[in-house]
Formats: sequence, C-alpha cells, structure tokens
Amino acid sequence: MLPVKIAGLGWYLPEQIMTNEWFAAQLGVSASWIERATGVRERRYAAGETSAGMAVAAARMALHNAGLRSDDLDAIIGASAAPQQAVPCTAALIQGELGAKDGGSVCWDVNATCLSFLFALQSAAHLVAAGVYRTILICSSEITSPSLHPQDRETRALFGDAAAAAVITHAAPDDPSAIWHTQFATFSSGAHLTEALGGGTLHHPADPATTRDHNSFRMQGLSIFKFATRQSQPFLDRFFRAVGWERSTIDVVVPHQASRHAIDQLSERLGFRREQVYSNIALRGNCVGASIPLALAEAVAAGRIRRGDRVLLVGTGAGLTLGALALTF
Amino acid sequence: MLPVKIAGLGWYLPEQIMTNEWFAAQLGVSASWIERATGVRERRYAAGETSAGMAVAAARMALHNAGLRSDDLDAIIGASAAPQQAVPCTAALIQGELGAKDGGSVCWDVNATCLSFLFALQSAAHLVAAGVYRTILICSSEITSPSLHPQDRETRALFGDAAAAAVITHAAPDDPSAIWHTQFATFSSGAHLTEALGGGTLHHPADPATTRDHNSFRMQGLSIFKFATRQSQPFLDRFFRAVGWERSTIDVVVPHQASRHAIDQLSERLGFRREQVYSNIALRGNCVGASIPLALAEAVAAGRIRRGDRVLLVGTGAGLTLGALALTF
Repeated sequence: MLPVKIAGLGWYLPEQIMTNEWFAAQLGVSASWIERATGVRERRYAAGETSAGMAVAAARMALHNAGLRSDDLDAIIGASAAPQQAVPCTAALIQGELGAKDGGSVCWDVNATCLSFLFALQSAAHLVAAGVYRTILICSSEITSPSLHPQDRETRALFGDAAAAAVITHAAPDDPSAIWHTQFATFSSGAHLTEALGGGTLHHPADPATTRDHNSFRMQGLSIFKFATRQSQPFLDRFFRAVGWERSTIDVVVPHQASRHAIDQLSERLGFRREQVYSNIALRGNCVGASIPLALAEAVAAGRIRRGDRVLLVGTGAGLTLGALALTF
Repeated sequence: MLPVKIAGLGWYLPEQIMTNEWFAAQLGVSASWIERATGVRERRYAAGETSAGMAVAAARMALHNAGLRSDDLDAIIGASAAPQQAVPCTAALIQGELGAKDGGSVCWDVNATCLSFLFALQSAAHLVAAGVYRTILICSSEITSPSLHPQDRETRALFGDAAAAAVITHAAPDDPSAIWHTQFATFSSGAHLTEALGGGTLHHPADPATTRDHNSFRMQGLSIFKFATRQSQPFLDRFFRAVGWERSTIDVVVPHQASRHAIDQLSERLGFRREQVYSNIALRGNCVGASIPLALAEAVAAGRIRRGDRVLLVGTGAGLTLGALALTF
C-alpha cells in the first residue's frame, strides 16, 4: 500500500462535436451501425487546439480541484500515446504553457499508448511514496484524428480527442486515500494487432517513401477483443489475489473506454456487476491515453466516485498490454 | 540510498562508419573544422538496422553480462528520444524481438530526449527497491540521421546512431552497489533551443502541410551551451549537498556526450578533474538518449569503472532539462 492520493482531477474537451451522421456519410455506413459497432454516439475533435494546450486546460482544473498552484508542482509527466512534437517531450511544453516556475519542476513523458496514464501513475506513486517528489502532475492529452485513415471504418468513428490531468500527492496518515496495487502484462505476440508503423525511425516522417498508410493507426478489433477476453480473466484473478479484495467490493470500475463491447465484457464475463462499471464512451469515444483519467475525472465530478471509495482502473493498450490499478480515492 | 544495482550493461554499434571527410564534402566545411567544432572524428549510422533490433542486440549483451536470461525480465523500458513507430511502444517490440516470454514482462517507454535513460533509471530503481519488479531492462536505441537536416552544419556531423542497454536488479545486503541520489530540473524557457516540430500531433506526418523542416531536429548549440553553463554550477552544488559527497571522490563522471565543449566544461568550470571525466564522443558522436548508457557500458568494459566505484551520470536534454544521478557501480 502506498500512502498516495489523487488530490485533484481535471479535463478538457474540444468544443467541436462530431456526430455519427457526419461519419456515416464519410464511411458509407449508417449512424446506427456506428453506434451498435462502437458504442459511440458522438466524440470531440480538436480544431486548433494543441496537445499541450489541452493538457494545460485539464491541468488548471486538476490543480484548482487539488487546491494547489502550478508552482507547487515538483514534476510533470506527459502520459499520452502521441506527443505534440518529436522534441522536446510534451511535459516540458506543458510546464511552459502552464506558467509553472522555470526550473521548478522536472518533466518527462511516459508512453504505453492507452495505458500511458496507468504506467505514469505507477511510477509517480512510487516516487511520491519515496519522498522524491511531493506533487506530481500527470497529463494525458490526445489528438487522435490525424492518425486515423479517413476510410477506415474500424477506427475512424471510434476515437475522440480529449485531455485529462491528475495531481498526485502524499496522503496524510489519517487520509483513507491510497494506491494498493498495480499490475501489468505485455503480450508482444499481439503487438501487430494495434499499430501505426510511421511516426518513428522505421518509416520516418522525413522519408519520402513513408506513406499515408504508414502514418495511419490500424487495429484488428475483433482479434484484440478475443485476445483480451482470453487473457483478462486469469490476469484479473491474479490481480485480486494480490490486492486481497473481492471484485464485489469495488465501488467503481473505471475501464479504458476501448469500445462498448470491451466495456460490456467486464460485467458479462469478468465478474463485475453492470452498475459497478463507469462508461463515458457514448459521448467521448475512445480517447486513447486520456480515456482512463477522463472517465475517472468525470465519474468523480458526477459524484459517482467519492473520497474513500474503492476504485479499479483497468484496461488494455497496444503492445498488447493489460493493466489494472486498485486505489482508495 | 536505494539498494539497486546495474547488474549488466551492453551496447550495439552499426557497422557503417561515417567519417568527417564524408560530411565535409556534404556541408562545405573541412573535416578538421568538424572535429574542432564538435569533438567528433567519426560516428556510426544505421544501415538497415531498426531501433528495436539494435536495442535487442544491446539487451542480449547486457543480459549476458548480468548472467540472466530474457525470461528473467519482469519489465522492459524503452528509453529513447525517438520510437521505432508511433504505436505500440518500442519496449513491446523489444520484448518480441528478444524472444522474452509473452506476457512475462511489462513494457513501456520513457522519453526525455537525451536524458531518457536517466529518467528510466530513476523510476526503475524505485520500482525495484519497492519490490514491484525484480529485474528491469532499460534500452536506449537511437537512429538519429533521418531527423537531421542534410544541410544543417550545427547538427548533421554531431550525432551518431547506437543502442545501449542496462539490466537493473536488487543489490544484496553485502553488495556495495547502490543508487544514491537523482536530481533533475526542467527549464522550459529553453524548450525552443532544441526542437523537432514534426513527428507528433502539431505537424503530423500525415498532414500534407508538414515540411522537411518540421521533421528536422534543430538546435541552437551556443545558446544551450550558455544556458547549461549558467545553470549547471548551482544545480551540481545542490546535487552534491544532497548526496553528501565531494566532487573529488567521484571515480568516474559519465556525461551525456552532448559536444566536446559541453564535456570540457565539467573539468574547466564545474569542479571535476579532467581525468575523472569519461568521453567517447570522438568515435561515437552524440547518440542522444543512448549516449549516457553507451558511455557507461564502454567505460565498464574498458575497466575504467569497476564494482564499488562512485559514478556520476550527468547531462542536459531537450526541455531544457539538467539531470544527475550518483551511484556506486
């Protein structure tokens, strides 16, 4: 158990709402087909916003909710699937745009695609528990649309843009907040199921041979779904044995909003009651690395999660990686 | 003090050697000018190697030197400035190419450009010390040439390609190995001094408006040098007060191989003797995130660093970030 607390949460949603009707016309399917296939009714698309700008808006809300100022931050972790630019890390750009004290915090990025926030939270929790940093800001900010192939039915209507932020601090001895256990497992046999081959050294953006397909995110949704379904039960059994809780004692399960079917699996096959599971996919889409912290922040703001509640953050990410983190909020 | 040990180190260098004569013809300067300006006589360029493939070669050497097998790994951290591809993280690709057990380790990437290895080592050390993972592989693998503008004298002849890897384990009670202190500070007022504007959401590779300049790394070397010189003295004074050592007691200083001038500053202005400072820049160039672990690995292999020696890893990275880590090897 780590005496570590999510002291404040925040988010930012671009104003531009993209409806299923709009995608239906683009993709040659019906709006109702999109909703059945993905669970998404609408999602936001950035229109002029930057990754760092969205992160800063979410960070201001998280700092306000934590009762802290940007100068209180000892560290800033950018935890997104996509950076704003190749150099420097997005966290450094966030320090600057947030107006946090120059030299007053330490900035780095963590990337594990949709599980970036969970990995960042694991490291942040241990660094805070060890007393290395007192206050860490984690920002997940995703602008997904440029990475989607305009004609790809599997991905185009599923993803949305959003940012979310969390302020991590030490929990006082009389504070019920704690981080209890984190568990991940990466199955690289599934790495090819979720890929964007461009954007790095293999098919570099400056290489004239790099194509639109290289720069497009592709996923084999059905194969990922089968893979995750097969691996999740033993993964979660091991997780709950380690943390020592029964699934039924979790107040709110906050899953990565991968797809409606993935979220439904938690109650249909993985041992949770439907009312334990929080979902915002209908209005937000799959916001990649921002999905878990956004859903957590919205669940807290809506009163679904209160201080002292047992919360499970859980999901899958490209890699293919399963992840779960148990906390008392 | 964390009872954590670098149990084994390894590296990989592409076979293709790029001489100053070759760059001189390209850039319209003399080979001797390049050596005077950068300190680099030759550097390697990948020719067909991939980022993950280079990382795996380095990892095999590190595992061999640690007396461990790939199935012993609990976690793999990719710690490079550039990923192999946008999705998934490079660490997952490394698990696959290394042939480590599917589902047997946990994979994520850390990015703080030239300080990626130091940030990864800080998190890894705390996770190992806390007992979360027993054995963590950190791989830094950089293929720099595609990100350099062919005509940019400031960067083109400075950088080289390389990979390096370290295996991190718990240190037994009678083992002198330990990680004593880590310190970073990010000055985002200097973020614009080292930039590649492309490769992310701002100037996306799939955006037709993205140019070769966006996808090229640019740095204002003289401004960075002045900035780092001004900040490094108080930064190191604070570091050595915290760790409780005198500069003179460090057996080997392993700096980021930013440039000959940056390395010279350590002995000329920052309080170390010239013979304390290890440099491989003449034959390797600045290998971005791989520079520090490569220099460390080569210094150990050459017998310059032995078990029980006090080592300082130190450097600057885009952000602009200063970093230092004190360990007993």
